[in-house]
Amino acid sequence: MSLLADLLSTLFDRRYVFMGKRDERPLTELCNALMSSQGDVSGAAIAHEILDGYATTDTEGKRAFFEFLNSEMDIDPDKLESVVSSYKTERTEANYRKLVEAAEPKRQELARRLNQVPGATHQLVHMRKDLLGFMKDNPNLARTDVDFRHLFNSWFNRGFLVLRPISWDSPAQILEKIIAYEAVHAIDSWDDLRRRLQPEDRRCFAFFHPSLPDEPLIFVEVALTKGVPSSIQSVLAEERDIVPVDEVDTAVFYSISNCQSGLAGVSFGNSLIKQVVQDLSRELSQLKTFVTLSPLPTFCKWAKEQEIDIPQDDAALKELAAYYLLEGKRRGDMPYDPVARFHLYNGALVHDVHVGADTSENGKKQSAGVMVNYLYDLQKISQNHEVFANKKEIVASKRVQALAKAGVVPASSQPKSDVA
Amino acid sequence: MSLLADLLSTLFDRRYVFMGKRDERPLTELCNALMSSQGDVSGAAIAHEILDGYATTDTEGKRAFFEFLNSEMDIDPDKLESVVSSYKTERTEANYRKLVEAAEPKRQELARRLNQVPGATHQLVHMRKDLLGFMKDNPNLARTDVDFRHLFNSWFNRGFLVLRPISWDSPAQILEKIIAYEAVHAIDSWDDLRRRLQPEDRRCFAFFHPSLPDEPLIFVEVALTKGVPSSIQSVLAEERDIVPVDEVDTAVFYSISNCQSGLAGVSFGNSLIKQVVQDLSRELSQLKTFVTLSPLPTFCKWAKEQEIDIPQDDAALKELAAYYLLEGKRRGDMPYDPVARFHLYNGALVHDVHVGADTSENGKKQSAGVMVNYLYDLQKISQNHEVFANKKEIVASKRVQALAKAGVVPASSQPKSDVA
Amino acid sequence: MSLLADLLSTLFDRRYVFMGKRDERPLTELCNALMSSQGDVSGAAIAHEILDGYATTDTEGKRAFFEFLNSEMDIDPDKLESVVSSYKTERTEANYRKLVEAAEPKRQELARRLNQVPGATHQLVHMRKDLLGFMKDNPNLARTDVDFRHLFNSWFNRGFLVLRPISWDSPAQILEKIIAYEAVHAIDSWDDLRRRLQPEDRRCFAFFHPSLPDEPLIFVEVALTKGVPSSIQSVLAEERDIVPVDEVDTAVFYSISNCQSGLAGVSFGNSLIKQVVQDLSRELSQLKTFVTLSPLPTFCKWAKEQEIDIPQDDAALKELAAYYLLEGKRRGDMPYDPVARFHLYNGALVHDVHVGADTSENGKKQSAGVMVNYLYDLQKISQNHEVFANKKEIVASKRVQALAKAGVVPASSQPKSDVA
Amino acid sequence: MSLLADLLSTLFDRRYVFMGKRDERPLTELCNALMSSQGDVSGAAIAHEILDGYATTDTEGKRAFFEFLNSEMDIDPDKLESVVSSYKTERTEANYRKLVEAAEPKRQELARRLNQVPGATHQLVHMRKDLLGFMKDNPNLARTDVDFRHLFNSWFNRGFLVLRPISWDSPAQILEKIIAYEAVHAIDSWDDLRRRLQPEDRRCFAFFHPSLPDEPLIFVEVALTKGVPSSIQSVLAEERDIVPVDEVDTAVFYSISNCQSGLAGVSFGNSLIKQVVQDLSRELSQLKTFVTLSPLPTFCKWAKEQEIDIPQDDAALKELAAYYLLEGKRRGDMPYDPVARFHLYNGALVHDVHVGADTSENGKKQSAGVMVNYLYDLQKISQNHEVFANKKEIVASKRVQALAKAGVVPASSQPKSDVA
Repeated sequence: MSLLADLLSTLFDRRYVFMGKRDERPLTELCNALMSSQGDVSGAAIAHEILDGYATTDTEGKRAFFEFLNSEMDIDPDKLESVVSSYKTERTEANYRKLVEAAEPKRQELARRLNQVPGATHQLVHMRKDLLGFMKDNPNLARTDVDFRHLFNSWFNRGFLVLRPISWDSPAQILEKIIAYEAVHAIDSWDDLRRRLQPEDRRCFAFFHPSLPDEPLIFVEVALTKGVPSSIQSVLAEERDIVPVDEVDTAVFYSISNCQSGLAGVSFGNSLIKQVVQDLSRELSQLKTFVTLSPLPTFCKWAKEQEIDIPQDDAALKELAAYYLLEGKRRGDMPYDPVARFHLYNGALVHDVHVGADTSENGKKQSAGVMVNYLYDLQKISQNHEVFANKKEIVASKRVQALAKAGVVPASSQPKSDVA
Repeated sequence: MSLLADLLSTLFDRRYVFMGKRDERPLTELCNALMSSQGDVSGAAIAHEILDGYATTDTEGKRAFFEFLNSEMDIDPDKLESVVSSYKTERTEANYRKLVEAAEPKRQELARRLNQVPGATHQLVHMRKDLLGFMKDNPNLARTDVDFRHLFNSWFNRGFLVLRPISWDSPAQILEKIIAYEAVHAIDSWDDLRRRLQPEDRRCFAFFHPSLPDEPLIFVEVALTKGVPSSIQSVLAEERDIVPVDEVDTAVFYSISNCQSGLAGVSFGNSLIKQVVQDLSRELSQLKTFVTLSPLPTFCKWAKEQEIDIPQDDAALKELAAYYLLEGKRRGDMPYDPVARFHLYNGALVHDVHVGADTSENGKKQSAGVMVNYLYDLQKISQNHEVFANKKEIVASKRVQALAKAGVVPASSQPKSDVA
Repeated sequence: MSLLADLLSTLFDRRYVFMGKRDERPLTELCNALMSSQGDVSGAAIAHEILDGYATTDTEGKRAFFEFLNSEMDIDPDKLESVVSSYKTERTEANYRKLVEAAEPKRQELARRLNQVPGATHQLVHMRKDLLGFMKDNPNLARTDVDFRHLFNSWFNRGFLVLRPISWDSPAQILEKIIAYEAVHAIDSWDDLRRRLQPEDRRCFAFFHPSLPDEPLIFVEVALTKGVPSSIQSVLAEERDIVPVDEVDTAVFYSISNCQSGLAGVSFGNSLIKQVVQDLSRELSQLKTFVTLSPLPTFCKWAKEQEIDIPQDDAALKELAAYYLLEGKRRGDMPYDPVARFHLYNGALVHDVHVGADTSENGKKQSAGVMVNYLYDLQKISQNHEVFANKKEIVASKRVQALAKAGVVPASSQPKSDVA
Repeated sequence: MSLLADLLSTLFDRRYVFMGKRDERPLTELCNALMSSQGDVSGAAIAHEILDGYATTDTEGKRAFFEFLNSEMDIDPDKLESVVSSYKTERTEANYRKLVEAAEPKRQELARRLNQVPGATHQLVHMRKDLLGFMKDNPNLARTDVDFRHLFNSWFNRGFLVLRPISWDSPAQILEKIIAYEAVHAIDSWDDLRRRLQPEDRRCFAFFHPSLPDEPLIFVEVALTKGVPSSIQSVLAEERDIVPVDEVDTAVFYSISNCQSGLAGVSFGNSLIKQVVQDLSRELSQLKTFVTLSPLPTFCKWAKEQEIDIPQDDAALKELAAYYLLEGKRRGDMPYDPVARFHLYNGALVHDVHVGADTSENGKKQSAGVMVNYLYDLQKISQNHEVFANKKEIVASKRVQALAKAGVVPASSQPKSDVA
């Protein structure tokens, strides 16, 4: 049916056809041309030149390009000051329009104009990745990054993202990116990947943006289980019994990975988990429990700072870990553990703690082998979030509360001061 | 293949599932909640309440909502003044961040947060349509409209639009919108529509946004012909010979219609025509000429202002029309004719003028039956645009130049002053 | 994603590209060539010539073509007799192979070889439609039709058909066929069609074959209702209350239409209804009752043959209609009513009878305004079918049984002999 | 757009929902039930039982099932003899219908009735694979195989197959089958596969049947090159220069693999190559030459039979290989080489011969490292095929003819008799 072919080919396959000769002006001159009236009509051609030119220039050229954006395409504070003053005097549309115009740095409109070329969105994301690199030596460039991030927060708004299941039916081109981007429990091989996607008790979901259809933005791996699992190795074991899908009662989010470093600071994780909880609930009404199986990546670091030795005894270790999760704090009375901060802010609660749960080298080194289940209960996440956000109170199951109480660090081993 | 089903169903079909009870706070209170930390986690639910509440409130409720956006979610000029001053003193990232934050009215972030609900983009477009209505009595609301327009220019950026052919294979749901939105030469019936879509010498293309997959944003109707046609009635005749597609040499854009009044001021027309010219060139290499067949909607109005009688004689009428197109000006030395302004700014040139070309009532009343072909030559549009944009020079074929020269209005009938 | 475009475009859009010059041999000669070794390699080109030649030849040419198939491409009974005899003697593979070959008329292989050209399946279906026409004057051609029907029964096997919902989202090209093919309750206009497809309490489903993706083979229109409806006019009323889908409990099949007269005798209706019952059950668990709302197309004809006047009194009319459905028989002790035969053989039972249920001209003329609900209960259709198929017993609800008993035609008005 | 989702999900995803309890009758009894009137209405349920029962029975059960088909569902020659005799006497429709019915073994209709269950087509293909295994010990079963093959030739008719490109965008589920089924030059790993699919100068195409959407039936791997390559190792080298697609002039079919052993004897290869030649020609007009790079799998075997030592000298080896291809014959004056028979019957010609072209172990063992290019020229394949099919003449390039002449085997080394 040609309708489908037409629709899909135009939906995803819009190639730029260059008509005419290359424009060899320097990047900065091209940027000025793109912002001029010339850009209104020949914008696509000029944008294409700029993106091509940027991609092929060397590191110094790239750095110079960002310096140009930072200094030449900045807000003009004198002008802004003057229009703000007018607007204060008279709140007319004309004054407001002038204010809004003066309040936006030119580089924002430049990025929007660059984006008219097919594939540009991905190139702009790459560009920001470079920018984040240059910022290490050139902290000054952070101003330009503020604008990139602002723009991406608007473009990659939740309303424009699509959640797609990733399965063994997905294109190899996408699957190889899942292998590459998995950041928590590395995927060794295509066989390992197949084990995480193909069995009926395994799922994977990713957010995509329509303009980057081949690029997952963030993905989550899910195990459907009977009961809450207490070990990542048992979840990922090569030889294991597949649970028939009509027997499962629990969905375990055991790995969440961001894929695009150029989108750092644009937050997707919270939406992703909640959307997946909703979708799985609808598909499989037998699912009653939605938990993570998460590392405690700074547990050992914290213990060391607290001058506490990691207990050899499992029971004591479990208590200490519970204590760490509920009482280990850093500046601002926030949880010391970054993964805890993420899930608690999302409205999850601390459900359970397991020792000997991650026997990998890294798991032992950072988390002393301990893992934690954060529980997502859609009926309660709003309320959990509120007490956490407003009162810094951490919601935890009774079991974990009791463990934490037992795990109170004796005064003698308390640190002298908050060092985190 | 479940891949396809999965992909497509998730791509287009993300329904909001409400989990919990309705939140009956007033709209303004909900807006404040959405902007607070509560919005970080329960944003989708609150956004849903606001959009639902807005949709079901009455006219006064809607007006009050916009008044709230306009006054309570505005830029705070005092604060802005203060951070601009700091930034002038010290151009640090922190100061820049504060400046950027203070320089954006809260209603922009509100709109972004509302947009996380499926279908919200379309609802926001509708919202602006209402706003444009309220602005007639409340010109003050124009400030809020500045922000809507700014946001939509970013969201409906060319890079996010997809060009889709509209054909007799398209869903009826989309086709009925084509019937409804056709603004130039009305479509009488489904049979009339079929005549404009199904024959091999007819095409139609529309821009879509992935978040409004059922809503064309703008569309253009194209006739493929042998030679440049000189009458719209012959193009649209019920009984006519269909030209085999291997015999055509010309593509005629005979109608361009915007569909979403809530997107007024977000410009798509220029990109649409150029994209269609490119796509048709690639598909049908036999096409050599790309022209419009356009009305002169203010020709009679101009003539009346100029105190010129519309000539009864065809030759003289043609000359006068050519003169009007090339020499009829309004303030700023711009062409008097709005359609001419659009195509000339896009880089087209005035190719030919036809009398007796539109015998419809409206065609006779506004254009005295005259129509004009604007020619799009991709090799020259950049250059044409430049001379028009910078020097106000109108590029025209020799034939039209000669006609215009012959059509010089005798001094005696020249108007006393520029009245346009 | 080019994968999708590729897949779909190749799935549905395989155009024949003619490479070389036309072959102007007569149709019969081309058929012989196609069956020869030449056909093994140049088959597509020859098949294309034959199909083109057939399409453009006149009535006499077409008739001659079928005469050729009928006489020249028949089974050779002498040869068949000889190989059967060999096979009786020695049941070897070689003898069997010879038997199978001799037992199949060449026109079957011819049709298979013609089918290698894109679009050929549809052309062959058209061809049979012509053949059915010629058979009226030339009953001899029925032999050839036996083979077409045999082939189509194999090709249009249930396993190759796909059930697709038809909705207001479907391509106009398919919808106009629904309008054209509706055989029971004519669709007046696109607005009428929209009323049957768009409301949430209306559904339509069709079987398609992958090689005729734009051609529905058979379709059924469904109303979702609260309770079993007793009037087709109320179901199809322009102004009616739409029933929210969570309040419906009954699915009513109020119209089933075959679309391809060239597929006469290839039976789809039984499978279609059962598949739709299954699919709707899964989608809407609130549906408890699946019934038709069917005409009694030969009720008045039967009454006339029985020399019974149609009762003016509603109660008596209802009883007579029930009696007719349960006791009106034709040769072979089968129900007189063709629609009853169809549904009863499918395993439905006679659920209810309604007078004043079809007030259309045709409804009054054929059915005296009476309509009947046949009930499909998936748990019982197998058993119902068995008693009907084996014992000619008609399963009916108690209510209808009682009505029929009351409606017993007095002996005096019994016909002298079975005239049906 | 739910249309798409609906369409695709129903197109490919029709799952059988079992409603009721299992039917535990023996397979043979179920087969008889399926053929009875019961099968008309409860066919899907019974078919499902049979397919399930077959899949789970042991080897003896399967063998017994085929014995049953072979003996109990055979043609009845006595009956057939009688109806043939009637038909000879009177060629009426009724007699013909009886003849056609008697001439078809019941197992054909059984297979068609089994096929109504989703997924049945694939299960029937598997069934025949088993049957081919049983035939080794039970040659008698070949009669049943004649019917399977006949049915599959009808169902897998060229007109029902779809050609799909296989690319790095294809689902992993399909790609792993490409790895598994590659029969000519084994694919070592996913990286090896990526090298054959992803570069712009590599292509792969497969035939699919709509009822087996995840199962390629046959596929061909293509290298786009500049000039005709003379070594398979250079084509498949890990490190090689990718040829920009606008510089290629030749398409090389370097591997063709059948995937379904249950479809043995249903021929796709000829159609596949020609379709791919057509499609590539249309897509890339710069392609002028379409050749294979093929092994000579029986060259060494032939030489041994001929008591000829494989020459150590490259020039002499090349001449002998050319001689073998053009003059090496087996019974029926057909080429000794099976790959030659395939391509020559398809209308290709022997274009060139290369020594040292396949240095793999197998290549050296079977082909003495020699490979051959068969050339497909769409303008000439019909004519080439005719002289080959009718006169057994092998068309070859002048260069190969000259080589073959030089390679004439001296009389002394001629074999005493035709041993092939």
